[in-house]
Order: sequence, then structure tokens, then C-alpha cells
Amino acid sequence: MLDGLFRPRAVGVIGASANPYSIGHIVVRNLTRYGFKGPVFPVNPKGGVIRSMQAYKSILDVPCDVDLVNISIRNTFVPGVLEECGRKGVKFAIVHSAGFKEVGPEGEELEREMVATAHEHGIRVFGPNSQGIQNADPEVSVYANFTFVPQKPGNISIIAQGGGMGEMLKLHLHNVGLGHRMYCSYGNECDLTMPEILAYYGQDEGTRVIMMQTESFKDPRAFLEAAAAITPHKPILAIKAGRTSEGSLAVSSHTGALVDQVTMAEAMYRQAGVVQFTDTHEMIKAAIAMSTQDAPPGNRIGIITNTGGPGIQAVDESVNQGLELAKWSDAGTAKLKEALFAEASLGNPVDVVATADHNHYHAAVSTLLAEADTDMVMVFFVTAPFTDIDAIAMRIKEATEGSDKPVVVVVETFSENYRLIENLRAADLPVYEFAEDGARALAALNRYALLRERPREDVPDLDVNRDAAETIVARYRGRDTYLPQAEAFDLLAAYGVSVPRMAVVAGADDLETAAKKVGFPCVLKVDAAEVVHKSDAGGVVLNLADMAALQEAFAAMHAAIAGPDVSYLLMEQKSPGQELILGAKASPGLGSLVMFGLGGIFVEVLKDVGAAVAPLSRPEARELMRSIKGYPVLEGLRGQPGADLDALEDLLIRVSLLAGDFPDIAEMDLNPIFAYPAGQDPTAVDVRLRIS
Amino acid sequence: MLDGLFRPRAVGVIGASANPYSIGHIVVRNLTRYGFKGPVFPVNPKGGVIRSMQAYKSILDVPCDVDLVNISIRNTFVPGVLEECGRKGVKFAIVHSAGFKEVGPEGEELEREMVATAHEHGIRVFGPNSQGIQNADPEVSVYANFTFVPQKPGNISIIAQGGGMGEMLKLHLHNVGLGHRMYCSYGNECDLTMPEILAYYGQDEGTRVIMMQTESFKDPRAFLEAAAAITPHKPILAIKAGRTSEGSLAVSSHTGALVDQVTMAEAMYRQAGVVQFTDTHEMIKAAIAMSTQDAPPGNRIGIITNTGGPGIQAVDESVNQGLELAKWSDAGTAKLKEALFAEASLGNPVDVVATADHNHYHAAVSTLLAEADTDMVMVFFVTAPFTDIDAIAMRIKEATEGSDKPVVVVVETFSENYRLIENLRAADLPVYEFAEDGARALAALNRYALLRERPREDVPDLDVNRDAAETIVARYRGRDTYLPQAEAFDLLAAYGVSVPRMAVVAGADDLETAAKKVGFPCVLKVDAAEVVHKSDAGGVVLNLADMAALQEAFAAMHAAIAGPDVSYLLMEQKSPGQELILGAKASPGLGSLVMFGLGGIFVEVLKDVGAAVAPLSRPEARELMRSIKGYPVLEGLRGQPGADLDALEDLLIRVSLLAGDFPDIAEMDLNPIFAYPAGQDPTAVDVRLRIS
Repeated sequence: MLDGLFRPRAVGVIGASANPYSIGHIVVRNLTRYGFKGPVFPVNPKGGVIRSMQAYKSILDVPCDVDLVNISIRNTFVPGVLEECGRKGVKFAIVHSAGFKEVGPEGEELEREMVATAHEHGIRVFGPNSQGIQNADPEVSVYANFTFVPQKPGNISIIAQGGGMGEMLKLHLHNVGLGHRMYCSYGNECDLTMPEILAYYGQDEGTRVIMMQTESFKDPRAFLEAAAAITPHKPILAIKAGRTSEGSLAVSSHTGALVDQVTMAEAMYRQAGVVQFTDTHEMIKAAIAMSTQDAPPGNRIGIITNTGGPGIQAVDESVNQGLELAKWSDAGTAKLKEALFAEASLGNPVDVVATADHNHYHAAVSTLLAEADTDMVMVFFVTAPFTDIDAIAMRIKEATEGSDKPVVVVVETFSENYRLIENLRAADLPVYEFAEDGARALAALNRYALLRERPREDVPDLDVNRDAAETIVARYRGRDTYLPQAEAFDLLAAYGVSVPRMAVVAGADDLETAAKKVGFPCVLKVDAAEVVHKSDAGGVVLNLADMAALQEAFAAMHAAIAGPDVSYLLMEQKSPGQELILGAKASPGLGSLVMFGLGGIFVEVLKDVGAAVAPLSRPEARELMRSIKGYPVLEGLRGQPGADLDALEDLLIRVSLLAGDFPDIAEMDLNPIFAYPAGQDPTAVDVRLRIS
Repeated sequence: MLDGLFRPRAVGVIGASANPYSIGHIVVRNLTRYGFKGPVFPVNPKGGVIRSMQAYKSILDVPCDVDLVNISIRNTFVPGVLEECGRKGVKFAIVHSAGFKEVGPEGEELEREMVATAHEHGIRVFGPNSQGIQNADPEVSVYANFTFVPQKPGNISIIAQGGGMGEMLKLHLHNVGLGHRMYCSYGNECDLTMPEILAYYGQDEGTRVIMMQTESFKDPRAFLEAAAAITPHKPILAIKAGRTSEGSLAVSSHTGALVDQVTMAEAMYRQAGVVQFTDTHEMIKAAIAMSTQDAPPGNRIGIITNTGGPGIQAVDESVNQGLELAKWSDAGTAKLKEALFAEASLGNPVDVVATADHNHYHAAVSTLLAEADTDMVMVFFVTAPFTDIDAIAMRIKEATEGSDKPVVVVVETFSENYRLIENLRAADLPVYEFAEDGARALAALNRYALLRERPREDVPDLDVNRDAAETIVARYRGRDTYLPQAEAFDLLAAYGVSVPRMAVVAGADDLETAAKKVGFPCVLKVDAAEVVHKSDAGGVVLNLADMAALQEAFAAMHAAIAGPDVSYLLMEQKSPGQELILGAKASPGLGSLVMFGLGGIFVEVLKDVGAAVAPLSRPEARELMRSIKGYPVLEGLRGQPGADLDALEDLLIRVSLLAGDFPDIAEMDLNPIFAYPAGQDPTAVDVRLRIS
């Protein structure tokens, strides 16, 4: 448990200084200014007075138990100080100091030394190169962090790798008067990890929403498990920095992390039920809605406005975000007609017209919330000069009481009327400035609802021959090499993947037997690690109709491509089906990712490939199939039969089991697979598979 | 010229009232509060005192010439009052009153009457059902509008159909201290039109940027011409309300306009060089950048930050928006190395690190702006406690002086330091709160640059046989009917579109002659208006290899489908090529739109179709081809030859000329076209063509 970190009884600030620009000074100031409930002990070997407090020369001089220390002294002094902290019985050390892993091998060594010292004494280290933590819970009110945003209690907790981004999230909650619950920006993550903190937030009753920013995952599997345990109960909203290759390189130069964790992050977020964002402000606005509003029971939005244009913007953005426009019952329409002006428009959006007053708004909001087929409501209000804005806020609030459906309000007004916004916020209603923002916030709530409610099942226990697979993998383990085609196909077959009939051909003498096994028409392929692009090298001949054609083709191929490592493979020629690609890639720290897409232009032009963490449950396999833009092709277009989706689901699971069972499979690329209409198994007709 | 509207010498307010919530009162207040340079004359038949001014009983009593009146009296009284205004010599009347076209036929009749009365007296009517106009030019300072945002001079002019949206645009410029130049929200557009006002803004020297919101286009061609004349000199930023079908319906119920103008709007915006947006706030933020920054010479962005995370967000969003990360010259890198801290990161983003001061920022900004291969610069700054924020603003300003390249600043700070933001804005630097916003604003400047600089050519004068086409069209004009296939193909051929060889077959006796003309293999098709889905009805037989097969097919088809209006067509069977679709659709008030896309899944699954206004110049035809996601397929994938792009360009132009020359062609659908590698003409193998 991390109570010693987030609910410390006393805090020591090692490196506290009278210099008001120093980190140690600012931490003392933040702890005292925001009313930390325990005592704060500035520590400085030179003693002195810091913000009217007498500094202690050593943590050992402090007269009571200290759970947490903030350390902002020179990097090389840290291990020594931790030694003292250990003797003092300190439980957690926030290390602000930089100059560790992020600066190269020397710093890395120092970091290891620091962690070793800490662990000898049972101290957990947060950081180094970190901002610190906050817990605005009024029972604790700890601001053990050197940033500038005032602390105010709220119910959104923040966990950010980057300090600048964490502060940004905090700042914009503050700007709308919301504050936050717990906060941390964790820097180098040398000991205490992000997933541990996430799990702690998950258990915290005062945390309703979690916002996170991540640059790189140190322990992806731990993150996945921690997040998946939380999202059924409370939403996690996430941004992964570096979603473009250029951004990924920037992450790398910022944190020294491996590039290209973005596919992994997206797959993990989906599997864990984390709501993903790419835009910082959009995530903040969604968190604001989630901090007071429940997830909607469905995706049907009702919109109320007193001016046309913003209502249309709301419609456009809602539809764009996957929401549907609700339709009112006859009774609901009658109620609106009775309550509103004759000029009002009773469709969706309801346009109450500019002259509508607080009672019109009350009627419209309460009517829509009472509609069984309306799942959420957005209220737009431009302050007309003749409207009582205090009454508007009160009546909208009253109309929402007793309903669990989410409501957001968009207000168009200027500074003279800002108390309207404050009143609505005080009534726990999220307020935005643009109709699009309201629509996106509600759509984010809907995304969370969909993630939370999707079916969860165990990975199915399919009949696979793990022993047979192990025998093949064992032959190549540790050699970091591509498997010969024949063995790669055997490996797939061991896991129940449908493959063409085939036979290895060492020389012309084998042709007759091979052809008997495989049948005509057939395909002759060279099978050699060096010949990667087989077709280009003349190493594939298709459509061999009879023995004569086969012999001729073999003679030509043997003359062109031969050598000690070269063999040949005769394969059944499958009739063409819908081309798919399916692959897996080892993902260090997580296991394997499964990749799926349609072949041809979908992958080449549109990069239309989905990824998921192996192994897959049935709903996860379906979700992966549905995640690609080309999914309608699989369902069948214009009365065409489409692919056998059950068989495809089975195939995805089998490949995911193989990848999951053998993390030594560095990469596996089934390309193409031919998928067929119902009743015919999808078949892998080519495979590349590398064992590490 | 609209000087009488936007630069009136005197304004009468007809319907002025002492009721502070009435429109007439608010207009008087706005005119006087913001210091209109001419006299204001409240007019009320009851007389009385309005805001300390004696009201006149009639406009005829006003003692001097009045250019402009605002009218907010009951709808039925308006024509009578306009009669008086006419006698007074009023030039422009803003009609705020509602109850005209928007309420149905009766209002429509009243609107016609009003316009007729006005035109008898040489009055131009603005509105009705409109908010009014503003011109913040200090020489005029006219706020003839009943809204609440304070008026402050700026250089962005706004034209909005919807009042709520217009006010929103104005409000958020005000919120960042920018103000605006001219403003109008034009309501029903009964007389004075949006394109006229746009043209006036275009000529106004004080207008640097134009922002517009449109729900429906009353005269699309006039808009296209007005906008195209402006965008080479100043940017127009636009939102079209109703971009989804649901939103389009909402527009329809708001304005009574035809639905589905969105494709037309997008085609017009592109052709006119208008920068399109779908998000209101994003458009406002782009306008803010354009109000002080020039368009960049290229798309390469340089990013400076003092904290990692937001720098990465800036990279991700920049790349996502089509910008490239600039690379520094060796000299530039050396300069950065010399000027910055040792821990600074000298790549892109340049991370000057949190402890950087104003001189570090100055060095980074001036170095990047001096780099030949850097086209624009984004500066991110989080206020570290030890930084002199006044010096930061000053030094960043100094670094940008003397450079025409656009610079935006993103500041992360809280209310205590807001003077930093004010100082930067006072230095004409756009300031944003999020890195993504800065990247998007620069990307919008780049989009404007690309639109402005794209090649403009006349529509080429190709050899087409207009007389032959006219002969065919004349036979069907006014009948609103589909052409028989044979004639539709003849029409295409008259404009030089390549079509298969073909012959009409009336009965079995014609088969021999027809086959001689067409050759084998060939295709037999039924050609009857009723049989729209020919293939489904068994009305198409492909791959007829010889006379016997043809005779058999004809006998079967004739037995299945016969009748007085049925004929048959024998066509050359073209070898399959890349399937394309090309079409045209009459677009009332504009002419015709040309639609282009790849066939099959691209159109069916991805709706990947581009549109442009007919006729097309060569660069416009190329742009239309490039606008679809599937364009790489046309260029050729994986070493495949791709389509003959010159021949395709020619085809698009020919079809656009046909559509442009014959607005009677209500729709034309060439689906599929087979495109081939260079040297072989793309050929239309099926066509549906309706003449209205």
C-alpha cells in the first residue's frame, strides 16, 4: 500500500533552502501553504530558517517518525542520504534530483546504487527526476511537489510521466474550479512503478476519474492488469505521447525509451477498457464531464438550444462521434408542445427560441430526461438580454435532479454573466464554451460505457498440440532465425490453423510422391532463408496443372536457385478467397501483439491494421475483426456472402494462443490468408515466422 | 458598394423603445455606447425618451440624411415603414423583425412585398430575421446589432448566417483581446446577399482575415466567384453547418434550405481557396494566428520547449496535420549548442530545459527563424518559478522581429502570470494554452499557403463535338428521363470519352452485322429504362466468344425481357482494368459537380469519393484525383504500373465539360470506368445518364 506516500503522517524535505526559487523551498511552501495536516521538517546540513521554520541538519535529528521525504540535493549525495533515511525508518522517498538514468550509463549506475541502498532499508523510491505527488483529500492535503497550480480538492486523480503534461492536466481542472484528488508525475520510475500507483488510485474512494499521460511503458503487463481491474468501476482516460513515428522519436530522446510503443499502447488501452485520447484538452473536458456525470445507458443524445447554429454544430459533432439523435415519444412531443412557445422547434435539437425563459428550459430538460429513448442531454444556452440567468441555472439544475442520465451545458456568454457558469458548475453540471465540446464530452462518456459493458470472457481452451509446437520451436530457439516454410506451416497446423496440403521436395526424384500427396493444381516454391522475396526471385510457380508442368518448373527453379540451404516445397493451390493478413509480434514486457487486417490495398494504401494483446478471448477476437475499416468486406458487400466470421474468430484465437504460448516467436506473418464463405476454413497460404 | 451599410453617416432606429430588453433599445444602446461617429435617431410613433434621446415619431421627421435604418417592428408594418424610408432617401434597411420566409408561405409573400417596396425606392434590405451589422473601424464605430459582445477594433471580419454562431466567433476573439473589424449575421438574405457582403469585406483594407459560417448557399455561383477573388489576397476561413446528414436536416429545419449542400460546399471551398474547418474553436484559433502571422513559405515546423511532454504532443499533432519537422543546418545546431545549457536537447523539438531563461529562448527562436529550412516556429513555455516572465515576453518578441515566418507561442501558466500572455499578445504573437492548438494554428496557415499557391489555369479548350451532343440532349430535354445506353454512350463519345465499340440490336436478324462491327468477345445487354439493375435481371451476358454463343444468349434474353421500349446492345468486351467511377450531378445555382472515386470497396466501404465544380482546369482535375484516399492505387502500388494519369486527367476534364455545357444533365454516372496503364485510354463500360 502506498499510504505512506499519499497519506504521510509527516514529511521531511531534504535539500530545503531559503532560496525561494529552489525546489526544496517550493516544496516546503506548497506543503505549508495548502495546509498539510502533519508536520513538515525542512532538512539542510547548514541548518538555517526556511519559511520561518528551523531547518534540521539531518533527517536523523527530526523528533518524530517521518513517512515521506522529498529529496532535491545533488544526485551523488542521494544514496548517502537514503542511508540516513533508512536508519530513521522513512518509508517513501520522492527524488526530485536529476542526473540519473536519463543522462547515460554513469547516471544509470548511480540510480541502481540508490535503489539498492533504499531497498536495504525498506524504502521505496519515487522518481528520480520527478516532480512529486499531491493528495488534495482534505484529511491529508499533501502537496509534496514543486509546481505552481493551487491545490483544491476534487475527485479526478492524475498520473503523468511527463511533468509538463501532468501540470497541464491539473492546471485546466483548476481553471474550471474543479481541483483534483491525487496527483503524481513519476519521472524515471526507478523503483515505485506507474501500475502500482494506478492500482492505488483505483482503490481510493475519493477518486472517481483517473487521467493519465504516458510516454513509455516500463512494465506493460503490469499496467494492463492494473488498468483492467479499475475500469469496470471507474473510468481511466489516457494519452500516449508519441503516436506518430516522429513523436515516438521525440519520446525516445526525452526518456530514452524504445520507440514505437504506440500500437502496443492502443491494444492495451482497448483490452483494459481505457478511454483513449490524442488531444489533451479533449481529454480534460471529458474528465470534467465524468467527474460529475454517469455513463449513459445508450448512445442517443437529446439536444436543446435557444439558437439554431450551435445546435447544428452539436448535431454534426455528435453524429461524427458515433452518437445517434434521439427521437421523442408522442407523449414527450406533446409535453414539449404544451410547455414551449409556438415558434419553438420540437425536433432534435429542440429549439426553445431565443426568448425562452428558465421555465421553458426546465420543461425541455426534464421532458427529454424522462424520455425512455433519450440517453443523454446537451443543453445550449446563449444569454439573451431578457433572460434571468440565475433562474436559468437553478431551473436547469432542478430539471436534472433525480435523473442518472448525463447532462452537459454549453453556455455562450461574456464576462459580465460568468456567475451563470459558476452556478451551473456549483450544481455539478459540466459547462463548456462550444457545442462541439459538449458533444465530444458526452461521446467520451458513451465510449466509456461501451468499454465497460462489452462482454468479458476467458480465453477459450481450444484443442492445440502444444507439445508438437514445442518440438519445432525448440529446434530454433535462441538462433534468431526464420523457420523453413514447411516447419512454419507445421507449427501453425499444430495449433489448428488450416494450411494447404504440402510436401517437401529435395530433388526431382521426390516430385512424383509429392504430387501424389498434394494433388493438382499445385504451387512450387523455393524454401530458403536467403530468398525472402520468393516471387521476385522466380522462386514461386503457380497453377501447375500436371506432372509435366511440375517437372519443367522444378528443373527451371533448381537451375536458378540452388545451394546447400535451399529446399523446395510443393503445395496445394488453394482457390483464391478474400485476402487477409494476420500476424503476431513479440512485445517485450507484455507478451505478444496480434495484428489483423485485410490484404492488398487495405493494408498497403490505408494501413488498415488492428492490434490486440495475445491471447484473445472470443469477444476480443471479434472486436479485433471489427476494429478495421474494411470489416464490411468480411461481412459481405452487396449481397455477396462475406467470410465465415466464426471460422475467422477461431483462427484469430488459435494464432493468438500460439503467439501467447511461445514468446520466442519474435514475429509471425500469415500473408495472405484466404478467407472463404461459411463452411470453408480460412487458410494461410504463406507464412514468415522468426524465432528469437 | 455597401458603404451606406457599413459606413453610414447617420442611423435611424425604427422601433426604438424604452424597454431595455427590446431589440430597438439595445441597438440604440450599442450604437451610442461604442461611440458611433454619426448621429443616432430613435424612431417610435409614440415618441418618448429612449436612453436620454428624444424619439422621432417618424423617420420623415429626422432633420438630416439617414443612410441606414434598423427596423424591429411587427412584421406586417415593415413594408409601410420602408415606404417612408424610401421617401426619406434611406439607402439600407436592417430588418431584425422575424415572421417572414422562415415561417411559411404567408411570410414569404410578406417578404416579397417588403423587397418590392424597398426596391421601388432604391433601398437595399439586409435580413429580415437578422441580427444586424457592425464595423469597428474607429472612423465609423457602428454597432447596429443587438448582441452583447463589447466592440473593439480588430482586423478579422466575420460573416455568419446564424446569429448564435456569429456571436460565438466574435465572443472568442473578444476573449483573447483581439476584437474584430466588420461583422454581420444576415438571416433570411432576402435582398442583400452574402456574396455581396463577402466581396465588400474583400476590398476593405482594414480586413486581414475573414471568418464565415454558412448554413445554406442561396447563390452558390456568386459565392464561389466572390470568394475566389479574395483568397489570393487574404484568407477566408469557413464552417459549413450540417456536414452530416442529420446536421443537414437540422439546417433544413432551421432555414428551410435544401438538404445536402455539404458536398457542394466542400467542392466550392476547395475551388475558391477557402480554408475549411469543422470545429468552431479550431477555426477561431486559426483566425487568431492569421490576424498577425503571414503564411509560411513551406510546411517545415521548428518546435522549442522547456518541458518534454508538450513538445511531443506538438510533434504528434504537427505530423498529423501534414507538417514536417524541420532539420537544422550544422551552423544552426552549433549556434544552439553554444547558446543553450549543456543538458539542452538540440534536435527538433529543441528542449531548452526548465531552467532556461529569456536569453536562451531568444537564442533558440532567432536561430530557428534564421534557418533556411525552417518555415515556422512554435514556442512552448511553462513558467518555471525562477524565470523572469517579463523578460521572456520581451526577448521572444525581439527574436521574431525582422522575420516574416509565422511564430505561435503556447504558454502553460496560471492566473498570477497572465500578464505574460497579455504581453505576448500585445507583441502581435498568437498565444494558445495547448501544444496541439499551436500546431493546428500553424497547420491552418500552411493550408492557406497551399491553397493560395496552387497553380491556377483556365479550363482547357479540348476538341469536343458540342453540336452532336446538343442533338442528343435536345431529344430528351424536359422529359426528366434516363437515356438509352446507346445514346448515353454516343453523348460521351461526342465529348471524346473513350467507349467500347457497340451496336444496337433490335432483333435476331441484326446479330450478324452487329457482331461484325463489335467483334468477339462481346457483351450483350438489355437497354430499357425500366431495367435499371441490368445484371440482377439477367439483362447482361458477358464473355460471348462466338456467334453461336451470342445467338443463344440473345434468344434467352429476348424471351425473358421484351416489350415495346426494350432494345438490346452489343458491346465490345473490354479487358478489365482498374475500376473507377466518375459522375456528375446538377447542382442548382452552381452548375454541376463532378464526382470521382475508385470503384468497388473504396466507394462502397470507404465512401472515398471526391467532388469538384465543373468544368475543371487541368490542375483542378489533378487535385480531384489526388483528393481521394485511394490515389496511391492510381499511381501504382508495389512496382505495378498504375493508371495513365494524363489520360485520366483528360477524361475528367471531358466529362466536366459535358456536365458544364449541359446543365440539363441532372445526373451522369460512369460506373465502372476501366483505367489502364500508360498508352491505353480509360474507357467507360457502363453509364447511366438522366436529362431533366
